Amino acid sequence: MVSEDKKRSSGCPIAFGLDTFGDRWSLLIIRDMMLSGKKTYGDFLDGEEAISTNILADRLKYLEAEGIVAKSRDPENRRSFIYSLTEKGRDLAPVVLEIIKWGGKYDHRPNARKTVPEQVRHDGKGLEAKLRRSN
Amino acid sequence: MVSEDKKRSSGCPIAFGLDTFGDRWSLLIIRDMMLSGKKTYGDFLDGEEAISTNILADRLKYLEAEGIVAKSRDPENRRSFIYSLTEKGRDLAPVVLEIIKWGGKYDHRPNARKTVPEQVRHDGKGLEAKLRRSN
Repeated sequence: MVSEDKKRSSGCPIAFGLDTFGDRWSLLIIRDMMLSGKKTYGDFLDGEEAISTNILADRLKYLEAEGIVAKSRDPENRRSFIYSLTEKGRDLAPVVLEIIKWGGKYDHRPNARKTVPEQVRHDGKGLEAKLRRSN
Repeated sequence: MVSEDKKRSSGCPIAFGLDTFGDRWSLLIIRDMMLSGKKTYGDFLDGEEAISTNILADRLKYLEAEGIVAKSRDPENRRSFIYSLTEKGRDLAPVVLEIIKWGGKYDHRPNARKTVPEQVRHDGKGLEAKLRRSN
C-alpha cells in the first residue's frame, strides 16, 4: 500500500496488485466488507483483529483513493458515512477466496476457524458470488 | 509477515494467510520463483523491483521458517545455496494467479506488462500448472 507515484514501476501486474491492495490491514477491511457486510467506520473498528483508529482511517482513505472503496452519506443518518466496495473492489473476491483456501489448508492452530474454508470446499462458486454481492 | 507468536489470533484463515505470506516483498520473491525460475540469493537481488539485501535476507529467512521456501546446498556449487518452493509455497499459485488477473485488468499505466495477464486469460489452468512446477 504505497502512494500512486511510489508504486513500483516494473510494470508487473503482481507488483501493481500488491502495491494497490496488498497491505494486510487493507485486505482485512475488504474481507470485513465481503464476508461480514461491514460498512461503517465503527463496524471496522469493532473487528476481531483490533485495528487502531489511525491505521483504519489511513487505509480507508487509501482504498477510496485507489477506487476500491466508495464513501457515501448514510441515507438513514445523514451525519454518518458508509463504505462500499466498487466493482474494482468486488473483483478482489477471487483473490480473497484463494487466500481462504490456502489459510484453511495450512492454519493448524487450535483456534483456526474452519467454517468459511469448508464453505469454499463445498460451494466455492456460491461463496464467490456472495463475496461479490457484499454491498 | 509477522513472527509466529505475533500472528493475529482471530482464527480467520485470511488473517492467517496474510500474516504468513502477505508481505509484499515476500510475494514478489514467491513470484520470482514461480514465474522466472529464480533460485539463488543473487537471482532475487537482481529483480526489477530492486529489493535491498537486508529485506531480501529477512524475507527469505521468514519464508523458510514458515515452510514456504526450502533452502539447500547447490549440488553444482557446494558453497552456494538454492531456494525452492515447498508444497505449501506452490499451493500459493492460485493466489498469485488471481492477483495477476486483477492487476492485468486494472493496471492502466503505460508500462503495464500484458503478456502474463494474457496468458492467464488464454490458458489459466496451464499457467497455474507452470507456476506449480516452478522448481
